Amino acid sequence: MNILITNDDGIRADGIIELAKAMSNIANVYVVAPESQRSATGHAITIHSPIMVNEEFIADNINAYSISGTPADCVKLGIEGIFKDIDIDLVLSGINNGPNLGTDVIYSGTASAAIEGLVQNKPSIAISYNEFNVTKETYREASKHVVKIVDSVKDKLNILEDCILNVNIPNKEIKGTKVTVLGERKYENVMEERYSPYGKRYFWIGGKIKNIEQVENNDIDCVEEGYISITPVNIDMTNKNKVNYIKDLNIF
Amino acid sequence: MNILITNDDGIRADGIIELAKAMSNIANVYVVAPESQRSATGHAITIHSPIMVNEEFIADNINAYSISGTPADCVKLGIEGIFKDIDIDLVLSGINNGPNLGTDVIYSGTASAAIEGLVQNKPSIAISYNEFNVTKETYREASKHVVKIVDSVKDKLNILEDCILNVNIPNKEIKGTKVTVLGERKYENVMEERYSPYGKRYFWIGGKIKNIEQVENNDIDCVEEGYISITPVNIDMTNKNKVNYIKDLNIF
Repeated sequence: MNILITNDDGIRADGIIELAKAMSNIANVYVVAPESQRSATGHAITIHSPIMVNEEFIADNINAYSISGTPADCVKLGIEGIFKDIDIDLVLSGINNGPNLGTDVIYSGTASAAIEGLVQNKPSIAISYNEFNVTKETYREASKHVVKIVDSVKDKLNILEDCILNVNIPNKEIKGTKVTVLGERKYENVMEERYSPYGKRYFWIGGKIKNIEQVENNDIDCVEEGYISITPVNIDMTNKNKVNYIKDLNIF
Repeated sequence: MNILITNDDGIRADGIIELAKAMSNIANVYVVAPESQRSATGHAITIHSPIMVNEEFIADNINAYSISGTPADCVKLGIEGIFKDIDIDLVLSGINNGPNLGTDVIYSGTASAAIEGLVQNKPSIAISYNEFNVTKETYREASKHVVKIVDSVKDKLNILEDCILNVNIPNKEIKGTKVTVLGERKYENVMEERYSPYGKRYFWIGGKIKNIEQVENNDIDCVEEGYISITPVNIDMTNKNKVNYIKDLNIF
């Protein structure tokens, strides 16, 4: 199996390094990641400037490159450019530093990279960890769960012909997995108005999560309860028809 | 009526200037646009850096600002920051320089700005013109059609509570409007591999449109036939349930 791995936190992030190492035990691994932090870039692609390419080292058995583009660029460039002679079987995006739950998905570079995989007709999975600033060891443990998920779906990849899987891993003891729908996640007091040392007005996007009544079986509550959420997302929307099919995979 | 207008081509683009002027005849117009070209930015938002704000002049009766952020930032900042004391009734994004048809929508800054309007619970419409490099006069004519569309929906804005309208205006004689679904638009030979004057490898995203068999009633063929396409899009996906409701509006 040939797996293309990308992320939105950049090539130096522990999440992608640990995921790539874990997957290299069961597959040929090809990495194309942004050269620096590119989170919240949504499905941006770079068309008004060139995309520079740099060879990188993660481990002896991993082909790795960083590029000056976005997460969606990484997938486009990985499949149609840098690794165009490799028949990629699966695209993984992650493991993201922080959750991508509910409405987050439309802003998420992690999810958008997986959606670009789908645009390129490749089965694709986005993986996020539900906490910021975690250790290498945490990502190493989380990667084991990703290996199990890939193992469960690898012989039924045609299920992913019209949706990606958006996976969120809880930052607590894992009770198992649940196939979910996207919840609603909105923020309040988002805009902080400030002034520069020279008196110029600016804003910085911040805000805290609003308390919203959620639909049944949503990903947000699922992760809170200690289950890994697996949401079939169709170009940024829950693909409700696929929920039962993927439940039937009985992923551990 | 209070209308917030943005785009992804930047505050200096003829498309937004003509649209703002046309709308100012029927509504109070508030403009927040990127300070420069930000097309193909998808639903990117700026969270790792501040967003600078500049006052701009379009016409005496138009409140206009440019910001250092993305199209989605413009809407977020317009509603929650710069114009937070104004009760915005409608968000318009455009008129974009070039089409946003079918699969384009997931990459489109124009559509993403409208989707951000929906995230902010505001009825939102994205408008694109199906040709690049057109004149001010062309946008002035196109804006008349937008006025008619806004006029048709302005008393039924609750129809837009769970979808945006993605509007594409043909670059030919207009036969009328059609409510459509998103077609499929993919590109071939996308990655041009090049070398810098210093021998460094880079890629530039290009490519030409693939010939794909389209579903019935898709936006791509509709615009080709000379009709304005109006597609209800739900967080980047066709909201098929809404097609008939909006057809019933009988927009000219």
